[in-house]
Amino acid sequence: MKRPIWLEKEHLRAVIFNDDTPAGRRFDIALTIAIAVSLVILFVESIPSLPYWLKVSLGVLEALLTVVFSVEYIARLYCAESRRGYALSGWGIIDLVSVLPPYLTYFIPGARYMLILRSIRFIRIFRIFRLFTFLNEGELLLQAIGRSLHKIAVYFLFVLVLVICLGTLMFILESGQPNSAFRDIGSSIYWAITTLSTVGYGDITPVTTAGRFLSSFIMLLGYTLIAVPGGIVTASFINTTSEPVRNGRCPRCDAKVRKGDKFCSQCGEKL
Amino acid sequence: MKRPIWLEKEHLRAVIFNDDTPAGRRFDIALTIAIAVSLVILFVESIPSLPYWLKVSLGVLEALLTVVFSVEYIARLYCAESRRGYALSGWGIIDLVSVLPPYLTYFIPGARYMLILRSIRFIRIFRIFRLFTFLNEGELLLQAIGRSLHKIAVYFLFVLVLVICLGTLMFILESGQPNSAFRDIGSSIYWAITTLSTVGYGDITPVTTAGRFLSSFIMLLGYTLIAVPGGIVTASFINTTSEPVRNGRCPRCDAKVRKGDKFCSQCGEKL
Amino acid sequence: MKRPIWLEKEHLRAVIFNDDTPAGRRFDIALTIAIAVSLVILFVESIPSLPYWLKVSLGVLEALLTVVFSVEYIARLYCAESRRGYALSGWGIIDLVSVLPPYLTYFIPGARYMLILRSIRFIRIFRIFRLFTFLNEGELLLQAIGRSLHKIAVYFLFVLVLVICLGTLMFILESGQPNSAFRDIGSSIYWAITTLSTVGYGDITPVTTAGRFLSSFIMLLGYTLIAVPGGIVTASFINTTSEPVRNGRCPRCDAKVRKGDKFCSQCGEKL
Amino acid sequence: MKRPIWLEKEHLRAVIFNDDTPAGRRFDIALTIAIAVSLVILFVESIPSLPYWLKVSLGVLEALLTVVFSVEYIARLYCAESRRGYALSGWGIIDLVSVLPPYLTYFIPGARYMLILRSIRFIRIFRIFRLFTFLNEGELLLQAIGRSLHKIAVYFLFVLVLVICLGTLMFILESGQPNSAFRDIGSSIYWAITTLSTVGYGDITPVTTAGRFLSSFIMLLGYTLIAVPGGIVTASFINTTSEPVRNGRCPRCDAKVRKGDKFCSQCGEKL
Repeated sequence: MKRPIWLEKEHLRAVIFNDDTPAGRRFDIALTIAIAVSLVILFVESIPSLPYWLKVSLGVLEALLTVVFSVEYIARLYCAESRRGYALSGWGIIDLVSVLPPYLTYFIPGARYMLILRSIRFIRIFRIFRLFTFLNEGELLLQAIGRSLHKIAVYFLFVLVLVICLGTLMFILESGQPNSAFRDIGSSIYWAITTLSTVGYGDITPVTTAGRFLSSFIMLLGYTLIAVPGGIVTASFINTTSEPVRNGRCPRCDAKVRKGDKFCSQCGEKL
Repeated sequence: MKRPIWLEKEHLRAVIFNDDTPAGRRFDIALTIAIAVSLVILFVESIPSLPYWLKVSLGVLEALLTVVFSVEYIARLYCAESRRGYALSGWGIIDLVSVLPPYLTYFIPGARYMLILRSIRFIRIFRIFRLFTFLNEGELLLQAIGRSLHKIAVYFLFVLVLVICLGTLMFILESGQPNSAFRDIGSSIYWAITTLSTVGYGDITPVTTAGRFLSSFIMLLGYTLIAVPGGIVTASFINTTSEPVRNGRCPRCDAKVRKGDKFCSQCGEKL
Repeated sequence: MKRPIWLEKEHLRAVIFNDDTPAGRRFDIALTIAIAVSLVILFVESIPSLPYWLKVSLGVLEALLTVVFSVEYIARLYCAESRRGYALSGWGIIDLVSVLPPYLTYFIPGARYMLILRSIRFIRIFRIFRLFTFLNEGELLLQAIGRSLHKIAVYFLFVLVLVICLGTLMFILESGQPNSAFRDIGSSIYWAITTLSTVGYGDITPVTTAGRFLSSFIMLLGYTLIAVPGGIVTASFINTTSEPVRNGRCPRCDAKVRKGDKFCSQCGEKL
Repeated sequence: MKRPIWLEKEHLRAVIFNDDTPAGRRFDIALTIAIAVSLVILFVESIPSLPYWLKVSLGVLEALLTVVFSVEYIARLYCAESRRGYALSGWGIIDLVSVLPPYLTYFIPGARYMLILRSIRFIRIFRIFRLFTFLNEGELLLQAIGRSLHKIAVYFLFVLVLVICLGTLMFILESGQPNSAFRDIGSSIYWAITTLSTVGYGDITPVTTAGRFLSSFIMLLGYTLIAVPGGIVTASFINTTSEPVRNGRCPRCDAKVRKGDKFCSQCGEKL
């Protein structure tokens, strides 16, 4: 007895992992819709005062989607070139994690914490879209950020030290006031981060003249500091985009040479 | 019997579509004033407690302007080189849409939704100004943004996935508090967007220590993320302004040549 | 009878308009202090519940400073190379405007509106500092901004059209709610500007789901839009700093040549 | 009698000032933990309603850490190559300041103001991390900021003049309203800084139409102004990264040569 065609590994693999075929494209669209529906359910279920019938329908729909995603996970595992490789890859883990939560709730109390696992499902939309068109763009973006990660890390350490000192100073200035929102140093540092990042909720605000003076200083500082990551990333972007200009190596000493150079600038080799 | 000169198609076209003639310039200025007045009416009419006489006067003025814009639309249609072409062009549709709402209110209830159509009138100011001086600037701007649209789309998808995960996490951390403003996951995601974009209304703010900790992290993340579109657009701008410099090679000596060069600048080869 | 030396025009001019001499430097420092004191008086006088004795002392001090600034203005006028030229120059008008308010209050009621004229005094600190060290920096900054002014103007027109449309849309979505802060279209546009610029006061916030959805969209839009002026100004800055690299003209045909070119790329002339 | 090895100056110096040895690395890790614990104590102690036993335990732990830091300071002083040089160096003063506060509280009342000195301890984490990996990155960052410091100073003076004028104008427009939060010119300037820096707490917001109009203008201005430091720093960053490329000339053929080139890339001349 022959297996039906849609159970052939090669055929299944072409549909699931490849979006060049019409079937593969249709599979991706269906999956995108399923994920979007699953996300809408997640949102609606969290609204406190839902009528009973809606709660039940959403529960049923969610159970159905769980079955769909489970089948999809098993299918991916089944037709992957290397099952172990897929299961341990980043996407494999994300796929598993998006499938698990409904099963876990039978064993572990506290379904609340499963919500975050369900929201992870949405990351999978990335894979689908990445396969479509944005592959290169996304990689360039990650490269540019990755290349400037060291600089950004130093910068954040600096910001952290700064907000601790400024938060403590602000606590000293403001905490004496009656009903001050600067209750403790933790809150003050939270406020300092809120201000320096120009978010400015307004749940904690200075009321003393000294506090407002220091606030103004922090804001103007934030104004300048906000420019720093921009400078780092932009410089990195510009280096990325103009990289082809800077390529080439000397065939003798492997030193970098500029386009248009007629002699290697390190060893004098004629190019 | 001869037509009066101001009804001659060519004359009318010169006035309406061309701003080089004094009459055309005067027409544009008059139109700008009419649009500005129409906008002021839109603003004032929306104020809840207006005296009766003002409401009536504004209604009359609006009716007059509608006649003016209608006549203008018909005149444009009448003297356009291709009537069909104008009517289906972007500007033609905007012109029609700016004229229609007062007529539609006679047939369709719910004048509220007509307001948005009336506000679209203001877009027409763009055409008038574009004709004056900013043509090239505007196009360069659009080109620079257009060229980086793919990168920005990937970036937004990434931000979207991020705020869904962060919003869900925040909902888990904060929704247990009494009177929490993190009512549902939708609100929490709205809060995450507010925070990540550094808008920070303060209508929803964390109160738990864990929530404030996560908030601080999101803010510092937003601080860095806000730099990314800046980097993309800036890199695109720089490429726009310096692009002609980076192209082409001399066929004889392979030196770089600029677009428009007639001789290679390294070996004198005619290109 | 000979005039005392400090009344000699040349000597006075050296002191007032020139900061190279020790006397000129001392004059500038004294003037800076006087302006700073005048500013502190402006701030303190505006506090509502001041004791009577402080009000009187501040009034006397302000009167003294007015005399000082008046004498300074007359001295500048007296020793200027061209009195008419100084009086009609930008700085001359600012100097006059900083001196006038106390005199005007004797003739015109409404001292409140004079406050703004008094705050203009502080602009003069700029002249003093400009003479010290920052001359070139300031000019480069203004040049860079000036060169990108056209692009920024187009951009602002675009933002204006956008906030009018978004504000009207938000008014339609939100104004139906009880106690909505979106009272009229003017308020809604004010809200749209607050949001798009990522200021986010929180005095007007959406409460409906549709409104929050549109808000989120506006915030993410503002996130991208905020990058545009950055890109414009930065590109302009980079062009400013690297300009010397791009100079030079062909002596025969006046076409631009790059540094290192050996032949004119337009006419083949050996350089 | 011989000194134990861990009291030998050279050994101690290798452990404390050098992180290349395993002992030095372990010392740095221990110190990082001690500083982190000290910081957590600082945070927790500031919470108003702590149980008595926790207050006492934290006090004891803090006393222990003070002893540790004191011993460390004495050890550093003891084994420094130049004791005077260390004691007067930036890090030496920070080390001393982090140790002193608990001792000072015995003599000087007002322990509150000692908190800021204790928060300074956290700066020391910088030294430890700087020694690990980020040395070059941090220095490049500081260089880039340092090089654009003059431009940023001019810019801040300009912003300061602007907020004083705008704050005064806003005070004139808004202070007449009942219960206006624009109490005095100081508050108004604080508001102007809050708005221009896009922080936007919302503790002070305009209510009059004129005030909201001016606010909208300030916000759009801030939108553009926020781009300026970005432009300055980014331009500086790009110059930092590509500077070596732009320097020097070949003495024979006047072609541009890069720093570090040993032969001219145009004519092969040995440099």
